[in-house]
Parts: sequence; structure tokens; C-alpha cells
Amino acid sequence: MWRELATIGRSSSTGGYRRYAWTGADTDCRAWFREQALARGLAHETDRNGNQWAWLGDPGGTDAVVTGSHLDSVPDGGAFDGPLGVVSALAALDELRRRGARPTRPIAVTNFADEEGARFGLACVGSRLTAGRLTREQAYALRDAGGTTLPQAMEAAGQDPSALGPDPERLARVGAFVELHVEQGRALDLSGDPVGIASAIWPHGRWRYDFAGEANHAGTTRLADRRDPMLTYAETVLAARREARLAGAVATFGKVAVEPNGVNAIPSLVRGWLDARAADQDGLDTVVAAIERAAGEHARRDGVDLTVVRESFTPVVEFQHALRDELNRLLGGALPVLGTGAGHDAGILSASVPTAMLFVRNPTGVSHSPAESAAEDDCAAGVLALADVLEGLACR
Amino acid sequence: MWRELATIGRSSSTGGYRRYAWTGADTDCRAWFREQALARGLAHETDRNGNQWAWLGDPGGTDAVVTGSHLDSVPDGGAFDGPLGVVSALAALDELRRRGARPTRPIAVTNFADEEGARFGLACVGSRLTAGRLTREQAYALRDAGGTTLPQAMEAAGQDPSALGPDPERLARVGAFVELHVEQGRALDLSGDPVGIASAIWPHGRWRYDFAGEANHAGTTRLADRRDPMLTYAETVLAARREARLAGAVATFGKVAVEPNGVNAIPSLVRGWLDARAADQDGLDTVVAAIERAAGEHARRDGVDLTVVRESFTPVVEFQHALRDELNRLLGGALPVLGTGAGHDAGILSASVPTAMLFVRNPTGVSHSPAESAAEDDCAAGVLALADVLEGLACR
Repeated sequence: MWRELATIGRSSSTGGYRRYAWTGADTDCRAWFREQALARGLAHETDRNGNQWAWLGDPGGTDAVVTGSHLDSVPDGGAFDGPLGVVSALAALDELRRRGARPTRPIAVTNFADEEGARFGLACVGSRLTAGRLTREQAYALRDAGGTTLPQAMEAAGQDPSALGPDPERLARVGAFVELHVEQGRALDLSGDPVGIASAIWPHGRWRYDFAGEANHAGTTRLADRRDPMLTYAETVLAARREARLAGAVATFGKVAVEPNGVNAIPSLVRGWLDARAADQDGLDTVVAAIERAAGEHARRDGVDLTVVRESFTPVVEFQHALRDELNRLLGGALPVLGTGAGHDAGILSASVPTAMLFVRNPTGVSHSPAESAAEDDCAAGVLALADVLEGLACR
Repeated sequence: MWRELATIGRSSSTGGYRRYAWTGADTDCRAWFREQALARGLAHETDRNGNQWAWLGDPGGTDAVVTGSHLDSVPDGGAFDGPLGVVSALAALDELRRRGARPTRPIAVTNFADEEGARFGLACVGSRLTAGRLTREQAYALRDAGGTTLPQAMEAAGQDPSALGPDPERLARVGAFVELHVEQGRALDLSGDPVGIASAIWPHGRWRYDFAGEANHAGTTRLADRRDPMLTYAETVLAARREARLAGAVATFGKVAVEPNGVNAIPSLVRGWLDARAADQDGLDTVVAAIERAAGEHARRDGVDLTVVRESFTPVVEFQHALRDELNRLLGGALPVLGTGAGHDAGILSASVPTAMLFVRNPTGVSHSPAESAAEDDCAAGVLALADVLEGLACR
């Protein structure tokens, strides 16, 4: 099952996956999902927003236990982010069958459309639409870098976009959603556990820092006469790291744009983007304010004008405690409970239905990279844990 | 004269000049030069490398006193860098005529082709070719960003490129070359002098710094597990400034390229370009070594791999002392003598003929920017100084 999927959308040059929503690679992944469902005798359907569902039991039933993740990828992503949750869900159904478990609630495996947002710039499009967190109009306005709109891309992939929009009737039939995901950090590696349970998704945001100085000749302008925004940017990059370390948060400048970006020109503008996340809102507010204060002080000293714009923000997602505690009880009561800095479809759905997540150990912690990995034993432990959860929730 | 030229190739949005070699704006500037020459009864010719010459006296004569500069510009450059030297040269001839001076040596005003290198990436193409510092093959291989070669661009502008190459016969007829240029710094402003004399062009070079780390998720990767090359880049930017200040040199990171340059991705690669210049070779060696040492130390600490490549280097250009001293004597003996960090056609020619430069005060020191300026009185002082020099050298 894994081997077949592993060849789809893989770049021969980087070894990374390029499975962007509604491209050929994505369509191949979706065909693979449908085949896997049909081979297991599961009822396959695609909902109005392009999310795939494979049902064990009545697709029209209520109080369903749903599990799954996504098959699309970031640019040159790894093999596990997304696919591990889908493959583990299918394997967990195989395990239930092996155990002779008899579900009393419908069970469904899902592949959510366009989780990574690599093509249209917005993450979790499929789950957002279904949960009513993205309107039909907003979805229709999404464009990729080539100018193709989301509905055009869906049509080109053979998916009818005309019914895009909230799907409360479907959501109402979901009694619980459990997403298994490879951990995107090293907490389980450090604690020595193959599997853990999510407590919350950290609040996070993106801020654009515009450092405006004065373009000038790099060879002839005295240091004392410069208003060089690259210096202020550099000080701010280091301040972000320092403040994040002090606050136990993470803060990153990973993207930068410079004007005129010439070797012999002092820049007129350096634009840097700050990504910051923390375990709670107070922690995030503190670290973001400290970084902006440090940037402002250096800007004054350097004669540089600073403008900071918050471009996006997602508040904390606390997963339902009752479901989380039930998962831990079903899995022996001793699993580590950990927060995460990454967004997931589970985070979107948690506002509408009881939602939980399982994490599988990632020995390097590397994520969104071909070097992302999980040991075979740990993946097997994830499948068994998910099977235990499905059996406990749906087979009583 | 100045007003007519001032409208050519000026961007209405930035107010800066975009006079790139062999474009329409450049052709208009060249037509202006030819008209100015003919209006003064000067013999106009274009040499095999596209440089324009306007002769007072015998174009075939020897031991000529030549003055001039260039009319092309950097992207969104100012009005003075280049044109001030050409306009002042023509105005100085007018002044000589007013004085009734009788030249005993031929005098020529030049407009050197493609000094800034904004289009084909190499500076001083016209003077390099003439001086044999750029081969015909190298010139033919130059391409602009659109893929147009230099000979194609010359042909499109109505200039025959078939004879491009060294012009030793022409060089041999030049007895002295004096270039007047707006100062690209504030030394004259600080010393309170309208005009100064160049001592030397500082040695300078460009180094590419590749900081290679590990791409990873900005939201989920613990700070302790990161190998973030943006941090090392930031430390190096600050180290460059610090070391330059200590050494009395200049060092600038004005250009940067990041991979993958995503807001939520720790970069795998940050590539920064260092431009460094100092008054002498020892000073430059010292500051460049200190910056590389600091970068290496931070790279080790950050788990980042550093590669430094020298992309270009120009040794010091010391202008001929005899000519420099004669200029100072002709101008009253009290002019400040100053070095400069910028390259010029005079720097190229100085290896072949006795060469000197006059600088005109730039009150802000701003250069390669629409904000570049010089006061009218200072420009007039520059014209008179240049007239004194031409009279002293050519009319005895």
C-alpha cells in the first residue's frame, strides 16, 4: 500500500514530494485512495468540497468515528506528512478486521483536499470549506501563481466545483475525528515514546517587517552616513531568536525580499517575514511584542523606518479534553500529551466536532523536507494505537 | 545644455534615470552629445568601441588632453553621475573660448560607452575595450537579462560592432586624461571644499557567502534542533559592519538570496554578497579576513556550513602623482586630495595613460540614487577648475 503511493509526485532531483492540490500528482494520489477504499469493500465518495471519504458501515449514518489526514504536500515535502495518517487509517481498518471487531458506529477514512496550501496559498482549504470557515466566494477567488483559480483547477482535475461551500449536514454526522500525523518535532524522540496525543495547536501568526532605509553606493558612502536597513534586519533576526529562547516559543525569519538587491548598493528596503508561535496566547503576545520593541530600537539607532503588519493569525486550538482523555485511557493511560506548532485539518474541525490527534515519533524532528522520517516499528505502533482507538470508540 | 539632457531617460515614477547602454535613452543621450559637439564646431567621431569623441584641434594629433565621463546610468540613478563630467567638459571648452585661450595640444571631450554596466553586468565596457582590458570575444559574449548580446544591442542602436577591440593607436595619441565626477561620498562636504583631486581608487572586491543549513518547519522545530543559516547570515552582516568600522573601510551586504524563502520554513540556504573596499590592499585584506573569520565562528556555533567565493577583485588604482601634483599646482595648490571607493573609466585608462580626476562636492554624499545632488555654485567651480586644468595643460 505504502510502496505504491511512495512513487507518486516524487521529484527525481530532490527526492521530495510535489503533490500540489488538483495537479496530476494529486489526482494520482486521489485515484490511489479510491482504489484502496474499493479494494477493502469500503463505500467511496467525494464530498462537495473535494474531500474523499471511505466508509465502513452506513455512509448516511450518524455519530461516525472518522480518521484520516491528507495526501497533498508542500514543495519538496517528505513522505510522511499527511500520507502517514491516511495509510495508517486504512491499515487500522485492516487490523480491526483481523481482530474480528464489530463496529457499532460508522467509521470513515478521509483524505482532505489541499491541506498544505502549497498551490493556492491557503492551508486546509477542504476542511475549512466543509466547516464553514472559508466561504464559497473566498474559495472561488483563490488563484495559484500561474493565475489559475481553484474552481478552474478542480475542473481541470475532473472535480465539479459548483457545490463548493459549507457542509453542516455532513459535519453533523461526525461524532469524533481522530487524525494521526507524523510528529513535526522531537518531543517523542526526547521522551522515548513511539506515539503521543495532541493537547493543542499553538497560536501562531505571521508579521511582515518593512525596514526602509536609503539606497546608496556601497563603495563610496561613509559608514556614518548610511541608513542601511540590512543592519536593522540582521539585529531583528537575532532578537527574534533571543526572545523566543527566553519565552520558550519559536520565532523565525525564513523569507526576505531586498530592494534594489544589488551587490554594490546599500538597500533602500529590506522586507522580512516573522513566523512566531507559542504554547499560549500570552506567551505569543509577549515574544512578538519583545521582537517588535527590539526592532524599533535598532531602527531608531540605524536611522531606518520600521513598519510592522500582522498578515495572518490563528488562535490556540485546544483539543476536546474528554476525547483526549478517552484516547489516553484506551491506549493504556501513559501516553505523553504534547502541543504542536503546526496547523492541521483536525485544528479546523475541532471547532465543529470532538477532535483528537495522535502523533508518531519522528527521530530527527525534520518536517516539510525529504529528510522527514519515522521508523517502521513506530509506524506500526501508530497503526495499532489508531486501531485501539477506533475499536474503543466505534466497536462497543 | 543641462536642461535638454535632464529630460532624457528619466522615470516619471521614481524621478531616477534609466539610461542603459545602447537603449533608446542612451541613443538620445549620444545624439545630444553629437549635437553639442557640432554646435561648438568640434569634430565629432565615434571610435570602434562606441565611445564618442569631440575634438578641438586636430583629431589625428598626438599628446592630446582628453576630458569627459559617461552619459549612461545605473537603474534609477541620479542626474550627476557621469553627465556632470561630460557637461562640465563642454562648458570648460566654452570657458576657454571666452578666455581667448589658444590650445597648443589637441583637446577632446569624451562620452565613454556603457560605464555603469547596468545592462550587461560589466562596468566600463567602452574604456576597457579601448585599453585592451576586455577582449573582443569577451565583449561579444556579454548578454543582457533578456538574452540580447552586446553586438546585437549595438547594431539595434545603429552602431557597427564589427570592429570592437583594443585601440592602442588611439590611446597612444592621448597625452593626459582628466575625468571630472560628482563625489560619491561626503569628504568634500566635511572639509568644506567645492572641488577636490583624486588620489586613488580603493581596491575592492565582491565575495559570495553561502550559508547552508537545514530546511525545516518554522512552527515545530525546537530552537535547539535548528541549523538556521539566517542567524549566521545576520551575525555576519553585523560583523562586516563592525570590522569595517574598526579598519576605516567599507563593507556591505546589499544582496541576498534565500532558499526556499518561505514564511514558515527555516531556510536551507542563505546566500549573501559582501562588497568590501579599503584605502589600501593591506587594509582590505585585514577587514575581509576578519569578516570571514567571524562568519566561520558563527557558522560552527550554528551548525551551518559556510563557503566563501571571491567573485571579483580590482586592485588599487593610484593616479599618476606627477599629473595629480600638476593639477593641484594649476588649481592653487590647496585642493584636498581624496581616495574613492567607486570605479571609473579614469581607473581603467590610468594603466595606459597619465590620468587624473576632479571631484565636485556632493552635499548629501548620496550616489546611484535620484537624491544625488550638487549645488549650482559647486558645479560652476568644477567647470572653472577643469578649464584651468585644460588651459594649463594644453594652452602653454
